[in-house]
Amino acid sequence: MKQVIVETSARHIHVSKEALEALFGAGYELTKKKDLSQPGQYACEEKLTVVGPKGTLKASILGPVRPASQVEISLTDARSIGVSAPIRESGDVKGSGACKLVNPENGKEYELAEGVIAAKRHIHLTPEAAEEMGVKDKQIVSVKIESERTAVLGDVVVRVNANFAPAMHIDTDEANACCAFGLVYGEIVD
Amino acid sequence: MKQVIVETSARHIHVSKEALEALFGAGYELTKKKDLSQPGQYACEEKLTVVGPKGTLKASILGPVRPASQVEISLTDARSIGVSAPIRESGDVKGSGACKLVNPENGKEYELAEGVIAAKRHIHLTPEAAEEMGVKDKQIVSVKIESERTAVLGDVVVRVNANFAPAMHIDTDEANACCAFGLVYGEIVD
Repeated sequence: MKQVIVETSARHIHVSKEALEALFGAGYELTKKKDLSQPGQYACEEKLTVVGPKGTLKASILGPVRPASQVEISLTDARSIGVSAPIRESGDVKGSGACKLVNPENGKEYELAEGVIAAKRHIHLTPEAAEEMGVKDKQIVSVKIESERTAVLGDVVVRVNANFAPAMHIDTDEANACCAFGLVYGEIVD
Repeated sequence: MKQVIVETSARHIHVSKEALEALFGAGYELTKKKDLSQPGQYACEEKLTVVGPKGTLKASILGPVRPASQVEISLTDARSIGVSAPIRESGDVKGSGACKLVNPENGKEYELAEGVIAAKRHIHLTPEAAEEMGVKDKQIVSVKIESERTAVLGDVVVRVNANFAPAMHIDTDEANACCAFGLVYGEIVD
């Protein structure tokens, strides 16, 4: 049983305490809108404008606050606003893209020197699920998604943590390229 | 030797004579900007605004004029402007998406009742190249693209015509999903 649910991550922003307070004011707390599939992670009511040299995008903040701010966008998004978004695992932001973040409600701005990435496609697994599937943390696997645009996506990194819920995460470009819409499962094929 | 160059098709529009004249005036002729890889096809100076219920996009016209207008956009584009874009082979527009086309220079409008599609990924081959690769017109194949986001794209249709130049065409979502940037070759793997 090497099947895993495939979820599409829309563009989103993780904020540091510093960025949050710069954009919303000292002591500000994020407003939870809904829980996400990964335990402890939630979408917030707060949205920001991501500003690049060629354009702007709106994106929601995901909570909770993290040690470093991170803007996760698709490569379509990156091109449309003229920013660099290297393909990185979450948290690996050193030397990644820069942008300006703006709170559209109050006009406050925050310059992000690095933190813009296109998320490397990945699978969240619990230790139990990883063992059942015969894969290990940090392993690179390929996943077949059957659809109107069937594809085998390589370069998928496995991440194993007891706090995870089993799910593969791809971005919107990847979801569109393999028509992974609605309830979709992927199969780890190597 | 089953390798073929992979080219990314940016969003573009083919216009019928009726649409061209409605948008630019009676007797108007397209202005060639540059030849494309497929013999006889060319990018034009003329651009149009594609209008959907949720937004607008700019796209260039490709010449020459065709029997039916066709707007080829990515699924990212389709979602951003709120139109339907079924995955279709070029020319198969019956019951496909609707939009309004606007000439941004003069404000003239043309309602397209059908013709908005996301192009089915495909390979143009000459009869000689097809024979060398052991594939036939209309065959569905899978193509491996090696990159930072390696993928095997299935549901690729082979199209064979003596007037073609050998090339695989994918859209921008697909190019982003498999980092097919610059000079890239795909390999037909089944």
